[in-house]
Amino acid sequence: MSTMPGAARVRTTEIGQHVGERVRLLGWLHNVRRLGGVNFVILRDGWGTVQAVTEPESELAARLGAEVGVESVIALDGVVVQEPQAPGGYELHQPRVEALTPVDEPPPVTISKRAVNASLPSQLDHAVVVNRHPARRALFRLAAGVMHAFRATLDAQGFTEVQTPKIVASATESGANVFAIDYFGRPAYLAQSPQFYKQIMVGVFERVYEVGPVFRAEPHDTTRHINEYVSLDVEFGFIEDHGTVMRLLREVLAGIFTHLQTALAAELALVNATLPGLPVELPHIHFADAKELILRLHGVDERSEPDLSPQDERWLGEWAQREHGSDFLFVTGYPMSKRPFYTHPDPARPTYSNSFDLLFRGTELVTGGQRLHRYGDYLAALARAGLPTASFERYLEAFRYGMPPHGGFAIGSERLLMQLTGAPNVRLTTLFPRDLNRLTP
Amino acid sequence: MSTMPGAARVRTTEIGQHVGERVRLLGWLHNVRRLGGVNFVILRDGWGTVQAVTEPESELAARLGAEVGVESVIALDGVVVQEPQAPGGYELHQPRVEALTPVDEPPPVTISKRAVNASLPSQLDHAVVVNRHPARRALFRLAAGVMHAFRATLDAQGFTEVQTPKIVASATESGANVFAIDYFGRPAYLAQSPQFYKQIMVGVFERVYEVGPVFRAEPHDTTRHINEYVSLDVEFGFIEDHGTVMRLLREVLAGIFTHLQTALAAELALVNATLPGLPVELPHIHFADAKELILRLHGVDERSEPDLSPQDERWLGEWAQREHGSDFLFVTGYPMSKRPFYTHPDPARPTYSNSFDLLFRGTELVTGGQRLHRYGDYLAALARAGLPTASFERYLEAFRYGMPPHGGFAIGSERLLMQLTGAPNVRLTTLFPRDLNRLTP
Repeated sequence: MSTMPGAARVRTTEIGQHVGERVRLLGWLHNVRRLGGVNFVILRDGWGTVQAVTEPESELAARLGAEVGVESVIALDGVVVQEPQAPGGYELHQPRVEALTPVDEPPPVTISKRAVNASLPSQLDHAVVVNRHPARRALFRLAAGVMHAFRATLDAQGFTEVQTPKIVASATESGANVFAIDYFGRPAYLAQSPQFYKQIMVGVFERVYEVGPVFRAEPHDTTRHINEYVSLDVEFGFIEDHGTVMRLLREVLAGIFTHLQTALAAELALVNATLPGLPVELPHIHFADAKELILRLHGVDERSEPDLSPQDERWLGEWAQREHGSDFLFVTGYPMSKRPFYTHPDPARPTYSNSFDLLFRGTELVTGGQRLHRYGDYLAALARAGLPTASFERYLEAFRYGMPPHGGFAIGSERLLMQLTGAPNVRLTTLFPRDLNRLTP
Repeated sequence: MSTMPGAARVRTTEIGQHVGERVRLLGWLHNVRRLGGVNFVILRDGWGTVQAVTEPESELAARLGAEVGVESVIALDGVVVQEPQAPGGYELHQPRVEALTPVDEPPPVTISKRAVNASLPSQLDHAVVVNRHPARRALFRLAAGVMHAFRATLDAQGFTEVQTPKIVASATESGANVFAIDYFGRPAYLAQSPQFYKQIMVGVFERVYEVGPVFRAEPHDTTRHINEYVSLDVEFGFIEDHGTVMRLLREVLAGIFTHLQTALAAELALVNATLPGLPVELPHIHFADAKELILRLHGVDERSEPDLSPQDERWLGEWAQREHGSDFLFVTGYPMSKRPFYTHPDPARPTYSNSFDLLFRGTELVTGGQRLHRYGDYLAALARAGLPTASFERYLEAFRYGMPPHGGFAIGSERLLMQLTGAPNVRLTTLFPRDLNRLTP
């Protein structure tokens, strides 16, 4: 592949171990900057960037930027020099560059500046290139870190990872908002969530989680909805009530934030993310009390509304910050009328449920709760909801043949990243978003 | 939830730490066996089973099996006694049982015997219950272990995990064999593989992997095909050729088998799996030589056929075993005519490709190879294949703006488990399989 023999390849993040040596790096020509009497050639590899210093009149400087433009794939070798002024503290001197895959036209969106300066549609159209920008890349490395820490925290508590089918015979929560598939001439659907399967798997492993895509055919066009997203799902048995689920959720979030802080501090800095504080006991408010609070604080009477609006969530988020100094707020006890049929009612106030949403900086991040677990309760709940038991025959087997009290939750990965980084749109925290109008890239 | 106060819950796998103490377990009534003068009550929790010994004439013995049948969810407390005869080496004496969720009808398939004794359709119809069987459960814990070790091995080599869209605007490999979706009134498809996205992401992170569902609308009805499966995908840059990819694949397999052996030995034993040997250099044979070998050994001349049949793969697997003592065999250099348009040709013999399949015990387990990386090569390959560049516009941006030589592979998770355990059908190594006729459970 290469005509430059000699030194084995070194990553940008490793050059500090090779001061005084000539090293060979492989990557992309991220930028060429002419500053005063010198040229800076910046190479980007999969992990970081490094600058090489060259004379502006050198043959190398002449070639770079012309037939070898930015985003060319290059091999760069040079002598590692400690230089406090250089980003990262090291730079390369006496560089030699070899073009492996030359690029001679500028990318459609400039990715060598500190920020990506392009319209949202343009950024999304050219995500293939824009995702190479160091800040975008840091964001998606954080997304990988979230998945990693989510699994590690749960593994340590005896959970087992599962992968359940995404093509299903009937809708999970309701008949609406599902994508229909032609399955060998039969109708089928894309799973809105792994809800039924993760409950079934409580009967097998007792404690399960799944990281995977979910599909919502909601014709929303908002800054916080996309139609395919990555859901971090948990379900486990032998709980007391939804309080047990809320406590586990807090531990999982603690595991995630601790990992990001320790393993991905540079990435957090690159995207200007500030980690939230996470008190041992997260504040919580009952749904009915939240409505009263909104009436009292903002004079808006929505007590007959069985749900919270985005404005309500923002108000509650501000209240939690003001009153409890917390970025998080549990809203518990959502009305049964707005929750799916498998929701467990509050035994003391049966029109309310043993469920919760977790608001993070004023936006719903997690939904969870206790589920029904008795077979008879399912038959009654389906009858009340006017749903035919025949469509749920296999799901019902789990309860017919013994299920413990159980519950769980689902975290939206992209939304967690949005709230963590203060991104104005969830599409910007999704590698390749799918929305009402967008199917590519 | 419970009326039995006192001891905190202990898992079946933890009772050895509590000899002489009265402990409380939670789980399912797995079985009740009457043997000679005693009754054995077997509890199964999420991690294992434990037996309790009781008098046959006790009140407890009378209740169990009648209104509290197998699969009832129970709390069981008793005194831990070391007993070499007992499975696991411990048993509970002086047991007390409380029924938390009583079950009074036997499950549709018996899961308390050593093996599941039911027809394949019956096992699959009742997978919700059958997956509770200890051997089935061990199998899916191995599946989780495979995912875990796959990720850990790659994380250690600087790879980044990605999650890419499953709803796509056009088919990956070819127009056929894709499931069509109604996407808000527009046609869309389910991704056959993350191929395009993982290549694009090499431009971002250089080394990426993905664990996720893939969807194949192949109207096959064989023992080794399902229509949705979990694909373990890898793609990375700055390779020499497909040999670099084959070496990484061997390391990944070594990481997987080492993890199973060290962390999941009990599960391997439960499913009678024997781990394969994995020599440092796996044997390989060129596609053209494989055809010659088959002609020589079996008298079948398929040299003009551009693919291998299942029978060919079995013959080659037997040969690798006989000749090299290996469960694995790389077949390299598949004809370009049978490989997708992004395949890199062998520079020395351009009708053959820099690609490979890995056979495991005579069945294809992995497909991989080097991809084209120059923009001009893509334009030429698409033209040759008669494919319109417009449909690939965004994908092509990756190559237009600089890509290194790269390649990767995809392991079918369910098929790996099938070959590892000698299961007669891949449906038996899938939690809830999807095939031509099956969409539930």
